[in-house]
Amino acid sequence: MKHSELRREVCLLNRRIVDSGLSMLTWGNASIVDRASGCFGIKPSGVAYDDLTEDSIVVLSIETGDKIEGPLRPSSDTPTHLELYRSIPGLGAIVHTHSPWATIWAQARMEIPCFGTTHADHFFGPIPVTREMHPDEIRNDYEHNTGRVIIEKFSSDGINPLEVPAVLVASHGPFVWGKNGNEALDNAVVLEQVAKMALQTGRLNPDAGPLSEALLSKHFLRKHGKSAYYGQPDEQ
Amino acid sequence: MKHSELRREVCLLNRRIVDSGLSMLTWGNASIVDRASGCFGIKPSGVAYDDLTEDSIVVLSIETGDKIEGPLRPSSDTPTHLELYRSIPGLGAIVHTHSPWATIWAQARMEIPCFGTTHADHFFGPIPVTREMHPDEIRNDYEHNTGRVIIEKFSSDGINPLEVPAVLVASHGPFVWGKNGNEALDNAVVLEQVAKMALQTGRLNPDAGPLSEALLSKHFLRKHGKSAYYGQPDEQ
Amino acid sequence: MKHSELRREVCLLNRRIVDSGLSMLTWGNASIVDRASGCFGIKPSGVAYDDLTEDSIVVLSIETGDKIEGPLRPSSDTPTHLELYRSIPGLGAIVHTHSPWATIWAQARMEIPCFGTTHADHFFGPIPVTREMHPDEIRNDYEHNTGRVIIEKFSSDGINPLEVPAVLVASHGPFVWGKNGNEALDNAVVLEQVAKMALQTGRLNPDAGPLSEALLSKHFLRKHGKSAYYGQPDEQ
Amino acid sequence: MKHSELRREVCLLNRRIVDSGLSMLTWGNASIVDRASGCFGIKPSGVAYDDLTEDSIVVLSIETGDKIEGPLRPSSDTPTHLELYRSIPGLGAIVHTHSPWATIWAQARMEIPCFGTTHADHFFGPIPVTREMHPDEIRNDYEHNTGRVIIEKFSSDGINPLEVPAVLVASHGPFVWGKNGNEALDNAVVLEQVAKMALQTGRLNPDAGPLSEALLSKHFLRKHGKSAYYGQPDEQ
Repeated sequence: MKHSELRREVCLLNRRIVDSGLSMLTWGNASIVDRASGCFGIKPSGVAYDDLTEDSIVVLSIETGDKIEGPLRPSSDTPTHLELYRSIPGLGAIVHTHSPWATIWAQARMEIPCFGTTHADHFFGPIPVTREMHPDEIRNDYEHNTGRVIIEKFSSDGINPLEVPAVLVASHGPFVWGKNGNEALDNAVVLEQVAKMALQTGRLNPDAGPLSEALLSKHFLRKHGKSAYYGQPDEQ
Repeated sequence: MKHSELRREVCLLNRRIVDSGLSMLTWGNASIVDRASGCFGIKPSGVAYDDLTEDSIVVLSIETGDKIEGPLRPSSDTPTHLELYRSIPGLGAIVHTHSPWATIWAQARMEIPCFGTTHADHFFGPIPVTREMHPDEIRNDYEHNTGRVIIEKFSSDGINPLEVPAVLVASHGPFVWGKNGNEALDNAVVLEQVAKMALQTGRLNPDAGPLSEALLSKHFLRKHGKSAYYGQPDEQ
Repeated sequence: MKHSELRREVCLLNRRIVDSGLSMLTWGNASIVDRASGCFGIKPSGVAYDDLTEDSIVVLSIETGDKIEGPLRPSSDTPTHLELYRSIPGLGAIVHTHSPWATIWAQARMEIPCFGTTHADHFFGPIPVTREMHPDEIRNDYEHNTGRVIIEKFSSDGINPLEVPAVLVASHGPFVWGKNGNEALDNAVVLEQVAKMALQTGRLNPDAGPLSEALLSKHFLRKHGKSAYYGQPDEQ
Repeated sequence: MKHSELRREVCLLNRRIVDSGLSMLTWGNASIVDRASGCFGIKPSGVAYDDLTEDSIVVLSIETGDKIEGPLRPSSDTPTHLELYRSIPGLGAIVHTHSPWATIWAQARMEIPCFGTTHADHFFGPIPVTREMHPDEIRNDYEHNTGRVIIEKFSSDGINPLEVPAVLVASHGPFVWGKNGNEALDNAVVLEQVAKMALQTGRLNPDAGPLSEALLSKHFLRKHGKSAYYGQPDEQ
């Protein structure tokens, strides 16, 4: 993929964050990786979504983390994206938002239980929340360490990040990903709905447990993997 | 009705699900039955609402369940629709959504009490919720069994599905119906409002019981049946 | 005022109910009275707001309650409007909606406390709720009796309906009024905001009492009556 | 700055209050100060946002509080703005709204805790709430005294109003400010989101304390002050 094409796709993806109502002002950011050329494009820091152009997108190297192209500073969260691209080979795009309902769970430092098939259609289990960071991890290399606690969470709990493509960073907000930009954005949109519905479900019926294992597997696997039968044949 | 006309109406009805804010992405689906020709049209599986055209609508036989027309796979929920059309003679159209407030009640596995006249104007009593399905019912013929537990609920509780034209499938979401597409969609819109208001009513006043039997009957029957006096004479 | 002018204003007022997001489908209705000619115009029964035209508005006599003009049936709630116009001389227009937050309070059968200046700017005290109606009052002359329990509430509690221009009908929803159509609609819009904020205020802080008497008087009276100083001189 | 330019900016700022969904009808008001010429422009009293023009903006002297330009009465809240401009030298613009979630906290008379980085990015600590005013302070010079209790709160608690640019006036609503109109409006938008998320966070997890001191400092200071590294170099 040419850098110009990458920048165009990253620009479109970032604009869709606002069009989908997931962020406002300069909050959040999205990136797309081009594994073939070993680089990824990301939103510049502190630029309003309305002012975003293809030329303002910053292209960086996955290997060195250095800027390859673009006149502006990359998003301050760039080291978090870099850490995720380095640690999760199948990952194609990352969307970070402050979408309100997912952020509420992040602020409450609670994982989002899987209460229904809307959740199970996209995430194969609860949405995990990272541990709180130590003052040292915050003061030095904060954004890099944010990526590290995300990876730590999936490793220590044995969660496959391609089956549960989202995480809540404690006291902060959601990072969501996918095989490509469209999938990452769809997952961010679904996460926000699921976060809202889970909060109200738990409040309406404190005894409502998660949906059954059989239902979780049925819904996730009718959409994902080799036995999927949802959608049209060429999509899978 | 010609198949082309049926497909056009089904396409419009599905688009209205999104226009009414009841679903997003590829969630949900709607169908309309043509009793005279013994077939019904339904949304294709996994197609985004924006990409929906008349030609993409799938037409199937009620008797055999086989596809009659259309190049695409029908919605994965088609066996649920089929079961409902076969079991409820007066049913003309079905709308399935993941509208958030109704889905919250479905996830909490609680019926929606009838707290007010907004509810009573359209549904003659609480909105029932199906029982949880056994792992076997989920693993084999899942979508057909979803239809069966809906019918089971109305039969066992003696509820007339034409007087209470909606159900919550446990851990999943609402299925709503009507004599025709317009009525089914209106009922889905009303259900979502009623679900939101009932949740907040119960939280505001845990001692608020349902509205009185006299008020329930008054409101439902001033709009439905032979003594109705709401609306204009030719509408009834 | 000519009947054609009255019908035009009533049509606009009804459309504004939907434009303000206070009602959907065919819910709710609005009327305006012309005291000089002794008649009022009201929405026809069961007509969708989008299909409303000036010609469809029904004009009735306050004295007899009979239809004077218009080919359609008036709103089924017409006897409620009639009772209010007959009992409250200063009343110029009535807006009835099923706006969700006000309806939630009506369904909970609780009055809305006055927690802040937004409320006090428009309503000089809590929004009252009517008593539940007896089965007999529901079965016979229901809509007329709805008007009667409203008047009963204001009389028995000594509330001036021109200072508190709204009421919640138990298990039903709000009726709101004003000196003219604009004021009635503004009051309905404010009531909905106030209803939402009061519900969340009481939940956030169950010990939060109403605002002080001094603040209630200050805010209501800086906007209403002979000592008002809010707005421009010619508006008061 | 010429008065005409000041009036134009104040008019735009006031319109943005409505465009951002923070107020409706005639609620709220915004002002901008021109320190060089010693005057500020403010919304006229009781004028609907849609009817606002540059010519309707009122210009007043900071020193005397007298009107310098404009045919209309200034906002009834003008003495509150005046008190803030006089007491906080670095303040460039004030936005007062009745945005619902911030108003709910004001009505509950509770400060908004800092639960996450969205809050910490803009406000260096909890959003304070003023004490209730005495009947005497309400009856006489009410709007001036409103400004005084705001200043009293920041002084007595040792809060820097340029680091926490917002306050909740008890039983009333938020006053928000900034170095200029854009910053004041952005802060008002963020406050509303933060107010909504904090309320739901506390309800979801009553044991969720505020975010750590290290995280609060990190996020506020990576955006503000001499060590800031968020955004582009020329913005800081």
